[in-house]
Amino acid sequence: MGKILALTGGVGGAKLALGLSQILDPTELLFAVNTGDDFEHLGLHISPDIDSLTYALAQQNNTETGWGRAGESWHFIETLGALGGEDWFRLGDKDLALHTQRTQLLRAGSTLTEATAAIASSMGIQHTIAPMSNDPVRTIVHCDLGDLAFQHYFVRERCAPSVSGFSFSGIANAQLNPLISNWLADCEGVIICPSNPFVSVDPMLQLKAFGDALESLPVIAVSPIVGGIAIKGPAAKMLQELNMPATAVAVADHYRGLIDGFVIDQDDAHLASQIQVPTISTPSVMVTLDDRINLAQVCVNFLTSLRASEP
Amino acid sequence: MGKILALTGGVGGAKLALGLSQILDPTELLFAVNTGDDFEHLGLHISPDIDSLTYALAQQNNTETGWGRAGESWHFIETLGALGGEDWFRLGDKDLALHTQRTQLLRAGSTLTEATAAIASSMGIQHTIAPMSNDPVRTIVHCDLGDLAFQHYFVRERCAPSVSGFSFSGIANAQLNPLISNWLADCEGVIICPSNPFVSVDPMLQLKAFGDALESLPVIAVSPIVGGIAIKGPAAKMLQELNMPATAVAVADHYRGLIDGFVIDQDDAHLASQIQVPTISTPSVMVTLDDRINLAQVCVNFLTSLRASEP
Repeated sequence: MGKILALTGGVGGAKLALGLSQILDPTELLFAVNTGDDFEHLGLHISPDIDSLTYALAQQNNTETGWGRAGESWHFIETLGALGGEDWFRLGDKDLALHTQRTQLLRAGSTLTEATAAIASSMGIQHTIAPMSNDPVRTIVHCDLGDLAFQHYFVRERCAPSVSGFSFSGIANAQLNPLISNWLADCEGVIICPSNPFVSVDPMLQLKAFGDALESLPVIAVSPIVGGIAIKGPAAKMLQELNMPATAVAVADHYRGLIDGFVIDQDDAHLASQIQVPTISTPSVMVTLDDRINLAQVCVNFLTSLRASEP
Repeated sequence: MGKILALTGGVGGAKLALGLSQILDPTELLFAVNTGDDFEHLGLHISPDIDSLTYALAQQNNTETGWGRAGESWHFIETLGALGGEDWFRLGDKDLALHTQRTQLLRAGSTLTEATAAIASSMGIQHTIAPMSNDPVRTIVHCDLGDLAFQHYFVRERCAPSVSGFSFSGIANAQLNPLISNWLADCEGVIICPSNPFVSVDPMLQLKAFGDALESLPVIAVSPIVGGIAIKGPAAKMLQELNMPATAVAVADHYRGLIDGFVIDQDDAHLASQIQVPTISTPSVMVTLDDRINLAQVCVNFLTSLRASEP
């Protein structure tokens, strides 16, 4: 098929993104990435989801920690802590270089898209990583500690607070990245990677021009919930705190009206009958590169079949 | 004797400063430090001379490189270079933490003096490190490449350009650090450490209130030039380019009218007769901690003797 758009958030989504990048070339695949959890810290512009994707596509992701950059060292942050500085956000020495370079490029007048492209290129990445917007959008977590900036909830508070909802500061005025709107003009299908529906995907869907455009396209989503737990991150905990079951079904319900197909893990195959759209079950826990490629191929085939069956 | 003020620049001066700190307690000794080579780089406020002194007093100076912090690693700067970033200023991973913490403290409203004190305290330093001013002063090197910011001359161009003079941007409006002016009220003597007279000491002397106050006090200086070469840095090269002999005599002449005594190396003892003020020769090349302490004791004794011989 023709052009595909993949929506992706953090580490979980980036796994499938890498698989997709191995079977679709840069003219066939664009990544749209959440920037709602971007933040300013220590004078740096940090874009965690862009970085997760960048490291994944460069195959420089840290498999020991499950986040950050491979072969990382921690001398900076340990020294900063010893000097009385803020060390709750564990910036590795190499990771810090990426944030510094992005911040320098932004200060020199680059857009976030341009800065992202320059860094990706220097890491040998061929595919385009498109931040959802060049304008600031900031996810706010409403929780029992009050309203927290996303990274304060996610990292500093280790997702411990009970959440009651989310808002996305700046979303009303943020323009969809022109790279994405241009791509949508002749895009033939959309894959929502297994990212957190509330804090990774919803910020993109709530960008008005983006959410509206997706409704007219074939869209499939891959469940980030397998067997009642989130493979990575707080998605399952959030579902429960929002009084939803922590199941793939609840994720599919969350995307109701948007998705035309849903991908669940083989272990959740018994749930397929509860899902309102065509659903396939397949091994979706990605450990090896082959796992990523296999799931990517299943998704592309599924999307192709949905297009073929369109009226 | 009572209170002593020590003027110090970079690594050379910091060696004697450590020696002084071992024989004089914090009520007897204040360090006044050049900030003319401070600069903003990668969004950080970098104060090379304050850092050299901080690392020396904490005995955390890097003896392998001769600058920076002990036990340093270079993952940040190597990664930044690979990403296409500016890597000519070799920021170590640990050193970077200090610059980041200073910058954060300044952004939060601390003065440079307060930020310096907080960092020094966290490193276990008892003595007070007083930046010459809380206001920005920036040394400009006039050279055959034009006018260069000091670190561009010193690090990026590796002191290669031929210099014709120096100016200190902001000096006219910079206020002397109140810690220093208060100390001067009952200070009994001043030691100019073996730092570069043009770019480490002159910025302090040209702070009007500072230079004027020193004239009424007993002042000794230690030559940074030994046997015609600078122990550290470009002092000898600068002397030649400014058409002065690269000797301790030229340094003493540079300080004429200010100093009441001069300390030269034992190898330069034959030059003593050419120097216009009382001069002692002593081992001044500091390799060990004992070397630093011994030279410090010679300086304090010399200053005491000059006071005793005052009319």
